[in-house]
Amino acid sequence: MKPSTLLNSLRVLALSATLGSCATNSTMQAFNRMRTMSLGIIAYPGFEPLDIFGPLEAFHSASGSLVKITLSIIGFEIGPVSATPPAGVMPPGVTTPLDPGWLASPSIYVTHTFHTAPALDILLVPGGPGDFYRDQYHVTDVEDFIARRYPQLNYLLSVCSGAVNLARAGVLNGKRATTNKSVWSWVTDPVHGKNITWVPEARWVNDGNIWTSSGVSAGLDMTYAFMKDIWGAAVADATYNGIEYAPHQDPDWDPFAIINNVPGADKKRSLKDCVAPAGY
Amino acid sequence: MKPSTLLNSLRVLALSATLGSCATNSTMQAFNRMRTMSLGIIAYPGFEPLDIFGPLEAFHSASGSLVKITLSIIGFEIGPVSATPPAGVMPPGVTTPLDPGWLASPSIYVTHTFHTAPALDILLVPGGPGDFYRDQYHVTDVEDFIARRYPQLNYLLSVCSGAVNLARAGVLNGKRATTNKSVWSWVTDPVHGKNITWVPEARWVNDGNIWTSSGVSAGLDMTYAFMKDIWGAAVADATYNGIEYAPHQDPDWDPFAIINNVPGADKKRSLKDCVAPAGY
Repeated sequence: MKPSTLLNSLRVLALSATLGSCATNSTMQAFNRMRTMSLGIIAYPGFEPLDIFGPLEAFHSASGSLVKITLSIIGFEIGPVSATPPAGVMPPGVTTPLDPGWLASPSIYVTHTFHTAPALDILLVPGGPGDFYRDQYHVTDVEDFIARRYPQLNYLLSVCSGAVNLARAGVLNGKRATTNKSVWSWVTDPVHGKNITWVPEARWVNDGNIWTSSGVSAGLDMTYAFMKDIWGAAVADATYNGIEYAPHQDPDWDPFAIINNVPGADKKRSLKDCVAPAGY
Repeated sequence: MKPSTLLNSLRVLALSATLGSCATNSTMQAFNRMRTMSLGIIAYPGFEPLDIFGPLEAFHSASGSLVKITLSIIGFEIGPVSATPPAGVMPPGVTTPLDPGWLASPSIYVTHTFHTAPALDILLVPGGPGDFYRDQYHVTDVEDFIARRYPQLNYLLSVCSGAVNLARAGVLNGKRATTNKSVWSWVTDPVHGKNITWVPEARWVNDGNIWTSSGVSAGLDMTYAFMKDIWGAAVADATYNGIEYAPHQDPDWDPFAIINNVPGADKKRSLKDCVAPAGY
């Protein structure tokens, strides 16, 4: 039985040392269901909306009557942050700086800065074209925050190209991870981080207390597996049935790796996956 | 061949009269791909996040390079609006007023009021516990706005319990529609609107220029079908493959109607659906 992802930060290791042989997965899940979980989600200009709001819908829904969660939306400054990346952004393959104000972009309200974000148990990092901008213009606030806070976290999650921030923070060193498949070669370029085992065909990857997903909507599937791991199936199933989403439960199902011709993807594998309500 | 949903508002009817026999679905789709589409999304205290952000992710993504869209987030006042419903809300079955500030709720930034919202081609109405509040406390701003603007719209969409606002606005009179399956009996109570054919087992329903979906994540599936109808399969497929979401394409697949024991749901039907990337 592989080591629980739950037992991977120092404070939790201390708890498990106290519990001894009682530090099973189900004991940790019971503990997690009892405590108030401090969840932080980073939002930067040019975040991909569903990267945040897929997982956040699940956490929001669970917080109604199943578990206690406090939420911080963390960014450069307090106030509305747009899904439109800053002017000057150049996505991979684009050689002229763009000023994409034409995007139909929502704004999310940031509640805490990188300086005022509270103690966090879970940190979620979305992807989006803002990742390209910050790389090109050497803006390091997101990766610096991840690097500072990682030792204190119980769990670190990324969706889509958000994994590039984890790579640049150095926390994927020696770990397996995945990312968005349409900008695969950009994210997995060793310039962002060495000694990372990038998994080319995966809806999500879990290594230790780090969870990384493929693009955009994959965050919803990863979050189901994550919730099942940390809170147990009852919480995860009730949540996902409440939001009427039948999750993909096979982390190796990744047809977008195949259709994007990601090197290493198994082209003989079926593109199809069959889903039903969680627990049914 | 059933009448195109595209040809159902007066201005578009006028266009089709001009086009005569050229007013085919594909002609309308070409016209739609040429024009800038004015999209409005209502946000009220206690909106369900994924009701907005599932469809909005699809529209946002399409607006990058496929079609031109302007976006208005419309609510009571400009500024951040929380997914936490106001104090005093009583969801169905709850008899004590709640003050659910404990919810892990994001805030979306409202850009226009019900008074300043611009001319709209598409209006999307989310669901959420705010619907219960506004019904109980007789707050009619959302349904009044829908009733005023409906004649000018090309398309009206709702997700989840948002359909109750369409019912109360009177626009579902003589139409088929569906809604969230866990609060089915509340939404479909004739007190909200008579002469509505509520479809008990449907991921979404399209009648004329009105599209209504089941709960929360169903909005993502409905929006794929909607985009395919108004812009054509090339736009819809490119968008959904870009967000790595394999949509459910059968509007009759609705396992949540079965597991919620909605009267009229076919319990013999399979709970399962098999999906693959759009167009594959």
